[in-house]
Amino acid sequence: MSKKYYLPEDKLPKNWYNILADLPVPLPAVLHPGTKQPIGPGDLEPLFPMDLILQEVSTERYIEIPQPVREAYNIYRPSPLIRATHLERALGTPAKIYYKYEGVSPTGSHKPNSAIPQAYYNKIAGIKKLTTETGAGQWGSSLAFAGAMFGMDVDVFMVRVSYEQKPYRKAMIETFGGRVTPSPSNRTNSGRKILMEDPDTPGSLGIAISEAVEVAATNADTKYCLGSVLNHVLMHQTIVGNEALLQFEDAGDYPDVIIACTGGGSNFAGFTFPFIGEQLRGGKKVRVVAVEPAACPSLTKGRYAYDFGDTVQLTPLMKMHTLGSSFIPPAIHSGGLRYHGMAPLVSHLKELNLIEARAEQQTDCFAAGVTFSRTEGIIPAPESTHAIKAAIDEALICKETGESKVIAFNLSGNGYFDMQSYMNYFAGAIQDLEYSDDDVRKALEEVPVV
Amino acid sequence: MSKKYYLPEDKLPKNWYNILADLPVPLPAVLHPGTKQPIGPGDLEPLFPMDLILQEVSTERYIEIPQPVREAYNIYRPSPLIRATHLERALGTPAKIYYKYEGVSPTGSHKPNSAIPQAYYNKIAGIKKLTTETGAGQWGSSLAFAGAMFGMDVDVFMVRVSYEQKPYRKAMIETFGGRVTPSPSNRTNSGRKILMEDPDTPGSLGIAISEAVEVAATNADTKYCLGSVLNHVLMHQTIVGNEALLQFEDAGDYPDVIIACTGGGSNFAGFTFPFIGEQLRGGKKVRVVAVEPAACPSLTKGRYAYDFGDTVQLTPLMKMHTLGSSFIPPAIHSGGLRYHGMAPLVSHLKELNLIEARAEQQTDCFAAGVTFSRTEGIIPAPESTHAIKAAIDEALICKETGESKVIAFNLSGNGYFDMQSYMNYFAGAIQDLEYSDDDVRKALEEVPVV
Repeated sequence: MSKKYYLPEDKLPKNWYNILADLPVPLPAVLHPGTKQPIGPGDLEPLFPMDLILQEVSTERYIEIPQPVREAYNIYRPSPLIRATHLERALGTPAKIYYKYEGVSPTGSHKPNSAIPQAYYNKIAGIKKLTTETGAGQWGSSLAFAGAMFGMDVDVFMVRVSYEQKPYRKAMIETFGGRVTPSPSNRTNSGRKILMEDPDTPGSLGIAISEAVEVAATNADTKYCLGSVLNHVLMHQTIVGNEALLQFEDAGDYPDVIIACTGGGSNFAGFTFPFIGEQLRGGKKVRVVAVEPAACPSLTKGRYAYDFGDTVQLTPLMKMHTLGSSFIPPAIHSGGLRYHGMAPLVSHLKELNLIEARAEQQTDCFAAGVTFSRTEGIIPAPESTHAIKAAIDEALICKETGESKVIAFNLSGNGYFDMQSYMNYFAGAIQDLEYSDDDVRKALEEVPVV
Repeated sequence: MSKKYYLPEDKLPKNWYNILADLPVPLPAVLHPGTKQPIGPGDLEPLFPMDLILQEVSTERYIEIPQPVREAYNIYRPSPLIRATHLERALGTPAKIYYKYEGVSPTGSHKPNSAIPQAYYNKIAGIKKLTTETGAGQWGSSLAFAGAMFGMDVDVFMVRVSYEQKPYRKAMIETFGGRVTPSPSNRTNSGRKILMEDPDTPGSLGIAISEAVEVAATNADTKYCLGSVLNHVLMHQTIVGNEALLQFEDAGDYPDVIIACTGGGSNFAGFTFPFIGEQLRGGKKVRVVAVEPAACPSLTKGRYAYDFGDTVQLTPLMKMHTLGSSFIPPAIHSGGLRYHGMAPLVSHLKELNLIEARAEQQTDCFAAGVTFSRTEGIIPAPESTHAIKAAIDEALICKETGESKVIAFNLSGNGYFDMQSYMNYFAGAIQDLEYSDDDVRKALEEVPVV
């Protein structure tokens, strides 16, 4: 029988885990893009409420999850930890495979785990309106849901090409009460400037960020929200790993290897940081594997350097694995994994050899996703198939060696809004991309020297 | 806090509940369309395996769920019973609202509850291939999933207009390994005949049934599966109510009123029959409310008479509430509620005054669905919004009277493949339909006299 582990209400985690407390080497400072000096909390105040800025730099190990956030979490949390017995049987492996399933959330992925607290902390700071950008719509719909929970307006700039190609994510944002504007738009100076130059532009995440930031910076009652990369976003996601630790106790097991896909890094961090923290404090050692798309290989082929977080180079400089802020990843289907950089915390752990990284080709990932669908009954998001691919590979190694290792991965989301990708896969229309060293060299030419 | 009730593995129901055992008046016989005499098991053998035929006529109160079926159920079951505290708070009602959430299944609705045992009983009867029809794709994708569980080929005839308009359900069927053919097709005599007459026909559920039945009837290794209406299908769905009974024990509550939407009747029966059975055996009394669309009001405006189950009048005659087998419901968005008749068992209970029925307009239902999305975080299937509408109405009556009744409804599925309907709703493109008595009279002219 497939075993599913939940948690009784009195055992639900009451804290997020902040890995900054346990790092053997401190995280490099974030630098002001002009002065190249470390930024202070005041520099971020136009965009974020002080509670979130303080979380960004806190070194407290545990930060309490406010009661209203826990109530909103409780709509879909705890997410189950599931023993994938049907997959194990199909593979004929002696390994035990577990997955944490974040697809149970209102928007089908882990994104609400940070959208909810971001909405909450803005709410108690007196903010009435939130702006954000969204590509494929996963983050935008999650913030719209969080806004509905706390009665806040949510204003989403959605990359125009996605707005046109993914009307159902737009419909989801509107169903949750959010406003969607295709970007670039006439609502901002940034948008108008781009439209004047190229009225038919498909838009980009970089442009959408500029518009959302501009609206927040020019309206006192409005702040900006980001769905990944930043320390506080990653910390909110640790609710995933904190639950998993308790659920593994319940299962009477502990993972030998834990796996998650990486785009900006939030799903990976949320699942793995609490386990890495255990290890850093002298607990059990665990192999940690980050899986990224071969078409956007920041962790495996990027340079570890100071770079901008956005394409238009307005953000502070963060030290991270990057392919260069002007890098435009090819249009692979895993929209959530197309970021040019990697969260500074994830990059730092990679430099400290606390995590491994590998890049996978998309067709292999879809094949793993189909195997998973037909055995475990969940059609995974294309992003999540990267983790499944790695988990299956680890399980097949166990089949060869006869070891019954415990393998665990984060199934960050389901693929119910990604069926077009599966159609393309079945039609043979998905191509693998060989990202050459020459490509990398070119992409890295623009990384600024600090 | 929203409370969610699951069940520990050792408390999971091991039986389905068969309401035929407790009926105060026996169910009218099913008649042969030619002789008008009651049919025997042999008449059904070309289409169904004997185990399912025996379940169709059994009067045993409990029928054991085979272990392999329980293992497949366990991929997504038990579904949670959830206390809708966020909705209660938004409504300001003293009522307690609970919902059973069937959207956690691989296909997002209750349909796999019968698809799995149907696949299983065919498998052990040596059948290699299953055929079925599907309209919007909910049942077809569920049978494809069940086929994947038991290694069987699943051959789905999908109404052509849905095949073209709902490519993502088709993609889901294929992801689970099923075959999809737009109907009418050149693969069957029925299909070829229709295509010869009208090459551009959009198809219909009636035609798709004919094609699926023809393939099953003319291939010894192939049987046919149906997703609702029949006694055994409704019985399989009682896993829903059986779990709910135990979950209410756990919650320390018992419903005063239980609500479900009705199309063919399987989701309604699955949730309510176990509660009705308790009452019939002298247990607690509960109000039971069936909610149907005003545009297809079989229970509230149909005639209780013998009628055919299909449009082409090939099936046996069943006594049921019907709008006439040639009735073509208007293209409302709740595709799952567009059947011209009602399951004989549900119809029978209505005649015995054991259940109430009401019809709701679609825009009211969507409004209720949006309220639910913004409070409970689940975007419901358009079908399920009918149950939500009635539950909210009951809760608002409690607000007036000050009673804190316990209201429970079945959230039969989520709306992640129905976002187009929500877009139409927000665009004001969804119209209510007043189904006049004259319409009913006309529709009923064709009900055969037995």
